[in-house]
Amino acid sequence: MLTITSTDNPRVKLARRLRERRGRAKQAQFLLEGIRLVRDAVQSGVQPEVIFFVPDQLAEQETATTLLAELQQRGVECLACTPAVLATLAETVTPQGIVAVMPWPALPWPVNAKLTLILDQVRDPGNAGTLLRSAEAAGVDGVIFAPESVDPFNDKSVRAGMGAHFRLPLRVCGTWSAVRALLTPEPPIYIATAEAVRAYDQVDWRQSVALIIGGEATGASNEARSLAQPLTIPMHGRAESLNAAIAGAIILFEAARQRRNAPPAIDSNATCG
Amino acid sequence: MLTITSTDNPRVKLARRLRERRGRAKQAQFLLEGIRLVRDAVQSGVQPEVIFFVPDQLAEQETATTLLAELQQRGVECLACTPAVLATLAETVTPQGIVAVMPWPALPWPVNAKLTLILDQVRDPGNAGTLLRSAEAAGVDGVIFAPESVDPFNDKSVRAGMGAHFRLPLRVCGTWSAVRALLTPEPPIYIATAEAVRAYDQVDWRQSVALIIGGEATGASNEARSLAQPLTIPMHGRAESLNAAIAGAIILFEAARQRRNAPPAIDSNATCG
Repeated sequence: MLTITSTDNPRVKLARRLRERRGRAKQAQFLLEGIRLVRDAVQSGVQPEVIFFVPDQLAEQETATTLLAELQQRGVECLACTPAVLATLAETVTPQGIVAVMPWPALPWPVNAKLTLILDQVRDPGNAGTLLRSAEAAGVDGVIFAPESVDPFNDKSVRAGMGAHFRLPLRVCGTWSAVRALLTPEPPIYIATAEAVRAYDQVDWRQSVALIIGGEATGASNEARSLAQPLTIPMHGRAESLNAAIAGAIILFEAARQRRNAPPAIDSNATCG
Repeated sequence: MLTITSTDNPRVKLARRLRERRGRAKQAQFLLEGIRLVRDAVQSGVQPEVIFFVPDQLAEQETATTLLAELQQRGVECLACTPAVLATLAETVTPQGIVAVMPWPALPWPVNAKLTLILDQVRDPGNAGTLLRSAEAAGVDGVIFAPESVDPFNDKSVRAGMGAHFRLPLRVCGTWSAVRALLTPEPPIYIATAEAVRAYDQVDWRQSVALIIGGEATGASNEARSLAQPLTIPMHGRAESLNAAIAGAIILFEAARQRRNAPPAIDSNATCG
């Protein structure tokens, strides 16, 4: 087996472009580091396009060698390389001997979404990824990255997402009219803000709704505010705000709680009749 | 005004020990970086013991110069130093020209706590700090760091806490019997786990309770499990778990929601009668 030893290898150079947002958008691909994330992706039905790996580092881990054998059997190109070459593709200090080039997941956008999450100017990739992870667990149907939000395929976002990127339909929108075009039929839109009077639990989350979560540093944009009804999370003490990922999870799980405990009025009538 | 130029200056060396957990425990002090956190601490009534600052870096920021003048007036020792000296005290790349030596806050432990949060093997300092921030906002009365949890005064934890460290009573316990000794009178204890049958919203959070949140990597310890009744957050999709800080916030804000919307039976009787 040939081992890539040069960081100037054309395959490595092409993959390295995926460390930048522009490269990811152009190639419609992104990088995934470590056994766990690659295995999650495969189990979610997304096949890597290329695998770069360091044979010596993988040899010690049984899950890794099993995974690699499985991928080779499926025809995935697996390229051995030196630790120095792999390091140029990795963002983490310990990429665990494996980096995969992944295609952007192409999950169909839900037509009659019951619960849509919109990230507005969320710039912290860790928060964005954590929001995706929570959104999947809360039963969100699709997530929209509105203008000036971080790239969902940023490596930190992918790591924090724990596989949600492969299972949850995502769309990145350059304009707010593109965001609105995805919301069909037009649901009520709510936005979490510190200043609102209405508490987040005073909303009927059993209907079809969209929720906007703004970035922590900037809050929500004017466009978002003009589209949505403001909600707040009542707070104790002298706390001024919550982390954006925390605020999103609290509201999304209130929606999940209401849906679990009290189905929509029309359904409960049907059950009673 | 004298400027400290040597990283071997005895005051700098003493402060530098606070970058380690052992040094923090021995001196009962910790370091705080940046204007915002130092101002938050002062506004919460905690006075810095020493301030190290880079005059040129602070001169441009009005809030900084105002704060420094105020602290000097109150008799806080403010030591000018070079950027190189300050860098040896800071964990962030941009400490914004100021690092404060703070005393451990000495807030009294609540005797009849209504809501106590216990962190069990939470090792990620960002998660611990975010949990403190959420706990304050949810109305938690006190937070216990159980054995094998991160130091609450780790710099990342302090940054993520956004000032909660100065306003929320915290205790670090070396043993589980020390944890139990803080819970008086003994409240029911719940623990969030993935395997439980009972949903977190099927608990009466209006009573006095304690909630254990386990670390993400390890889950909860056997000691914690033996003390507490298990609860789960029902999840959709193929999500296997939630981030520890997210799980904690979801449950704490369910407690806050119940307390806000439905006061304990005895209180509502009093109101009705």
